Amino acid sequence: MRRLALTAAMSAVIVSQAHAVEGMWQPAQLPAIAATLKQHGLQLDPKTLTDLTAYPMGAIVSLGGCTASFVSPEGLIVTNHHCGYGALQYNSTPQKNLIVDGFLAKTKAEELPGSPDMRVFVTEEIRDVTREITAGLASDMSGAARYKAIEKAIKQQVKQCETEGYRCDVYTFHGGYSYQLIKQLEIKDVRLVYAPPESIGKFGGDIDNWMWPRHTGDFSYLRAYVSKEGKSATYAKDNVPYHPRHVLKLNPAGVEQGDYVMVVGYPGRTNRYRLAEEVRNAIDWTYPTQIKIYQDTLNIIDAAAKSRPDVGVKYASMEAGLNNYLKNFGGQLEGLRRAEAVDVKRAQEAQLEQWLHEQGGADHAALIDDIAALRKAIAEEQSTRERDLDLSLIRRSAVFGSALRLVRLSQERAKPDLERDPGYQQRDEVRIEGALKQMERRYDAQVDQRMLTYALARYVTLPASQRLPALDHWLGSANTEAAIGDKVAALYAGSKLGDTQERMKWFHADAKAVDASTDSMLELARAVQPQLKQIEDADDARAGEMTKLRPRYMQAMIAWKNAQHLPVYPDANSSLRVTFGNVQGVAPRDGVSYSAFTTVRGIVEKNTGVSPFDAPKAEIDAIKAGQFDGYASPKLGTLPVDFLADLDITGGNSGSPAMDANGRLVGLAFDGNWESVSGDWLFNPSLNRSIQVDVRYMLWVMHQLDHADNLLDEMGVSVKATP
Amino acid sequence: MRRLALTAAMSAVIVSQAHAVEGMWQPAQLPAIAATLKQHGLQLDPKTLTDLTAYPMGAIVSLGGCTASFVSPEGLIVTNHHCGYGALQYNSTPQKNLIVDGFLAKTKAEELPGSPDMRVFVTEEIRDVTREITAGLASDMSGAARYKAIEKAIKQQVKQCETEGYRCDVYTFHGGYSYQLIKQLEIKDVRLVYAPPESIGKFGGDIDNWMWPRHTGDFSYLRAYVSKEGKSATYAKDNVPYHPRHVLKLNPAGVEQGDYVMVVGYPGRTNRYRLAEEVRNAIDWTYPTQIKIYQDTLNIIDAAAKSRPDVGVKYASMEAGLNNYLKNFGGQLEGLRRAEAVDVKRAQEAQLEQWLHEQGGADHAALIDDIAALRKAIAEEQSTRERDLDLSLIRRSAVFGSALRLVRLSQERAKPDLERDPGYQQRDEVRIEGALKQMERRYDAQVDQRMLTYALARYVTLPASQRLPALDHWLGSANTEAAIGDKVAALYAGSKLGDTQERMKWFHADAKAVDASTDSMLELARAVQPQLKQIEDADDARAGEMTKLRPRYMQAMIAWKNAQHLPVYPDANSSLRVTFGNVQGVAPRDGVSYSAFTTVRGIVEKNTGVSPFDAPKAEIDAIKAGQFDGYASPKLGTLPVDFLADLDITGGNSGSPAMDANGRLVGLAFDGNWESVSGDWLFNPSLNRSIQVDVRYMLWVMHQLDHADNLLDEMGVSVKATP
Repeated sequence: MRRLALTAAMSAVIVSQAHAVEGMWQPAQLPAIAATLKQHGLQLDPKTLTDLTAYPMGAIVSLGGCTASFVSPEGLIVTNHHCGYGALQYNSTPQKNLIVDGFLAKTKAEELPGSPDMRVFVTEEIRDVTREITAGLASDMSGAARYKAIEKAIKQQVKQCETEGYRCDVYTFHGGYSYQLIKQLEIKDVRLVYAPPESIGKFGGDIDNWMWPRHTGDFSYLRAYVSKEGKSATYAKDNVPYHPRHVLKLNPAGVEQGDYVMVVGYPGRTNRYRLAEEVRNAIDWTYPTQIKIYQDTLNIIDAAAKSRPDVGVKYASMEAGLNNYLKNFGGQLEGLRRAEAVDVKRAQEAQLEQWLHEQGGADHAALIDDIAALRKAIAEEQSTRERDLDLSLIRRSAVFGSALRLVRLSQERAKPDLERDPGYQQRDEVRIEGALKQMERRYDAQVDQRMLTYALARYVTLPASQRLPALDHWLGSANTEAAIGDKVAALYAGSKLGDTQERMKWFHADAKAVDASTDSMLELARAVQPQLKQIEDADDARAGEMTKLRPRYMQAMIAWKNAQHLPVYPDANSSLRVTFGNVQGVAPRDGVSYSAFTTVRGIVEKNTGVSPFDAPKAEIDAIKAGQFDGYASPKLGTLPVDFLADLDITGGNSGSPAMDANGRLVGLAFDGNWESVSGDWLFNPSLNRSIQVDVRYMLWVMHQLDHADNLLDEMGVSVKATP
Repeated sequence: MRRLALTAAMSAVIVSQAHAVEGMWQPAQLPAIAATLKQHGLQLDPKTLTDLTAYPMGAIVSLGGCTASFVSPEGLIVTNHHCGYGALQYNSTPQKNLIVDGFLAKTKAEELPGSPDMRVFVTEEIRDVTREITAGLASDMSGAARYKAIEKAIKQQVKQCETEGYRCDVYTFHGGYSYQLIKQLEIKDVRLVYAPPESIGKFGGDIDNWMWPRHTGDFSYLRAYVSKEGKSATYAKDNVPYHPRHVLKLNPAGVEQGDYVMVVGYPGRTNRYRLAEEVRNAIDWTYPTQIKIYQDTLNIIDAAAKSRPDVGVKYASMEAGLNNYLKNFGGQLEGLRRAEAVDVKRAQEAQLEQWLHEQGGADHAALIDDIAALRKAIAEEQSTRERDLDLSLIRRSAVFGSALRLVRLSQERAKPDLERDPGYQQRDEVRIEGALKQMERRYDAQVDQRMLTYALARYVTLPASQRLPALDHWLGSANTEAAIGDKVAALYAGSKLGDTQERMKWFHADAKAVDASTDSMLELARAVQPQLKQIEDADDARAGEMTKLRPRYMQAMIAWKNAQHLPVYPDANSSLRVTFGNVQGVAPRDGVSYSAFTTVRGIVEKNTGVSPFDAPKAEIDAIKAGQFDGYASPKLGTLPVDFLADLDITGGNSGSPAMDANGRLVGLAFDGNWESVSGDWLFNPSLNRSIQVDVRYMLWVMHQLDHADNLLDEMGVSVKATP
């Protein structure tokens, strides 16, 4: 479930098998595949889907990590339950737990403010800026210079574009083959309107996460508010509902097996065009290593939580995340193994190079050379993988990580804003401050020390050439876990950064003051920072080199595919995409078939009364009594809950509207099946399925169980009589 | 997988829904349901199945816990891999692990002796002895007197029947409604002929245990030997192959979806006719309590094994068993919950009593009274459930359990054989001696002490009325785990019974010597034994009462069913039974369908190279190359591995031949699906399926992978050419 809410993404790709349905298409690409869209059943003119200000695209928004849709002229938004989760969390108290109970505002006045970081992004413009970004690049530039030049060009574009209430970002496509500037209205007052109880919205919980058959009612409603003047504004009581340009129509009849369906949303990251060696590295090293580290981390937390329950509370969210990733990594490894992904990629690369050879000429020869150079750069990148991982673990220490961030910020602040490193510009300071503050709720000194000790114990096993002299100097002769533990204990004893006020003090302090601090954490951070910066610069240089080489690989790929009359979609990059296909089940493995729909029968079957399988009694009773209020599917003879389609989605697509052939909402995407976990690397049309909650189940729950008829009215859905 | 090898059975039942196919029928019942058999596709005359000395029944034998079939006139036997496992274990050495590698005797001379306890039982006679057993019973007898009278009558029947080389047993049907004397030839020289490697025979291991889809090649071959004179004899080099009366024919074409199929075998125990209150007790108390105890026991073993690996080896088999049961109990609870078993049973009992009321008359009123009395007896039985469990745990201590057994044996030996308690008669002494000897391989003093301490710590929480004065006297004031631990340590310190020679000494000693022993374990056992005997006598009295009441309940049930023209099959009791149905898949839950057959495609999918999913490379290669030697199913277009059927089987059915409409072998039953785990209480025709290994897969593995063409020849199966 969480998979589709965009969190930390992985890295790397796969040559598309170019099945008709695979693909996260840019809206502008759709006319080129109009015939395929029609063939699959689209009734709308594909051209209408290219206009972001027209129906239906104008109704679809980003929540920053999730996708959502406007469903009323009064700014009502529908998205996944797990996407509106933060608002439920923010408004819950020990006395009134909205996560468990759900929530319904019967009037606008009853709506609750979402957490301050909630946003609705309405994409208003997408403009190709490839020329602007790459104009200053020369083929003989060093990687570092190239990186800096691109960074600077992007910053300039953003600066020119951003105005009050709008956010602009330059998105990189195909690793640098093209760039697009995307301008979004940023709505900051987002309120909680309605969510079913957790026993519906998160039915099946982590156990069913990434699994089919699924019976989760993963939907909730929010509302976008703006100032009386119609401008983006933070929460204020007298803000007014935002009036979207377009509103998605609902089709209360839903779709049936075989019907056309499409999902529009903001998928975060895929690795479909990574090379075989990158896939191999992920299988042989990245996932197994991360699995070990995550398990060790869980053990550290569990050991501490045994004697001190408060530790469990503080790290509950991290534990949930780690367990979620552990399950995910298992799925990645299983999926990549079953797909024989490395062999598939190797064969495809060989075919591509064979084709380039056959074309002949200097241009194609240069492409072959650049692909070889890309392979070399990848190998170089992998040569420091242990070090990069260990340093990231060291940074993950809450206190030492804060110290590093404070030192870095104080240094960046000394520069003009446009020259400051991305992530440390003025526009980033609110976020940094928030992170420094929130640390207090998710931090335990003892656990944090154990984690830093663990990270350093890994670090000291690195070859000397990959070590940081300043860190080694501080460690001295400590090279056992016990000795390192002593060092770390002393480090914590000499620092007050565990205290929020102290962190705030340094956040507001100037570089001189930070430089003069005798806090042991800040001292160590100051000592280590220059060497970390060196490594970062080297990484940037490598990334700069990659922005030259990856586009060359993609250029070859696109040429090859085009020669076969196949369009090429770019890897997901959090920009707006369309994926289309049909409602259909799947045969995931020998002897097993899954149907396209689950039904309420499965809720009764799964219901144990114990969370996460504790359906509301009223729901079980209504199901047993067959009270489906006219929402049942005539074909299924009962009420559907969730459905499968062969759509190409990933993290970030959570909450995306699933639309029928006429662009009407028939469900919300919220997950993929287990076989699709590895789909970020290699999409398998016969196995990968997206999971949607069915609009009929949504409406039934709203009407029959939660009596949210006010919202049905607002959406223009006629309320059916309860028999 | 192990499920079907009969191990410790559970207890309790369910009123049959009387679906046509449900039922473990006694061969003699088949003519009465001939129409149904024909309707499902049987081609043979049902009457032929009632003659145990005719084809095919004459070819089917018991291995004591498993079932098997003669497949050549030279005494060749086919059964499950997990049924022949003991022979592989017995012949394995660290240098040559037959379990892992498999084994093939190319000639009879190469065959290996099975373990000394292996047996083949050929049923030669089944005779109703209800009159003989119940003749001496009077309705006014006390439960205790009744129990003794039945016990005595059974012993007499057995004594009269048993002759050299034969074993006779009286089987109780319907809880005492009828009794049958069964006479079996006991073949004691059983040799290992062929088993595929573990990576085929146990492919999927514990992970796939009770699961579908399944890809296990669970089959192996043994051979029965007798003396040159044709008599039962223990292993001797010059023994000769036994010539069975009949030999099962193989159908190398197998069966397809929908085809008639039947399984003949020796199912161990079912609880189909238990009352609602007994089911409720199992759900609310027995399974949850056992789950806790088994987990605690595993924790005790694991804690010790952490520092001493030899503990892990000694308790490996117990751990495997406990884990197996834990999984099973989870399945029982899940299945009983999903089936709403208690409600179903309550409704059925109400219907039965309603019918009795409607019939009127003194006879029916008496039945109603007796059902009420049965309910009371059941409640009484449950009132001491904690004590009974705790005492069984105390007996489970290897050393103290041995002491109790030695004391008891010495006392029983003082009586004439026919008056000795069952289990302590002359015929049982070999078994007792073996158990006392084998203890050394599965016993660790420290773990054993921990387990006894654990059991006693439970015991001391019992109400005073349920405690044993002698045990309390020994415990003194010890009522904490620590204090009990000290007591137990002293008990072990004062005993030499951990030593095998010492146990053997006392096994051969007379009652006087045992009485005079100062070994602390024997002293405590002597002190406790009279009170344990008291409890046992009370249990026997209750059991005697039950032999009166349960048959009355069954009498009512049979009358009610007969009024609906429905035959009633008895609960499984390790006697020969027939179950029939059709090859078919299952829809185990909302959204999921399982096909009737798995295919070799699934072996490639599951294969990770890591046990238990480490198929032989030769197998993977042959599958990928499509080398199926003509064994592929034309309908499936590939080679089947295992198949499902709606057959009613349970533990003890392992290795049972699955036969087609003409009585030819088309596979071997070896497990049930997950949904059938709770089928021992309540058979659900729409969910419960038996799992068989397909004869085509067996023959293919034998020919293509293991080159066991000598056995194919011996079975008269034409060897197909390898392409």
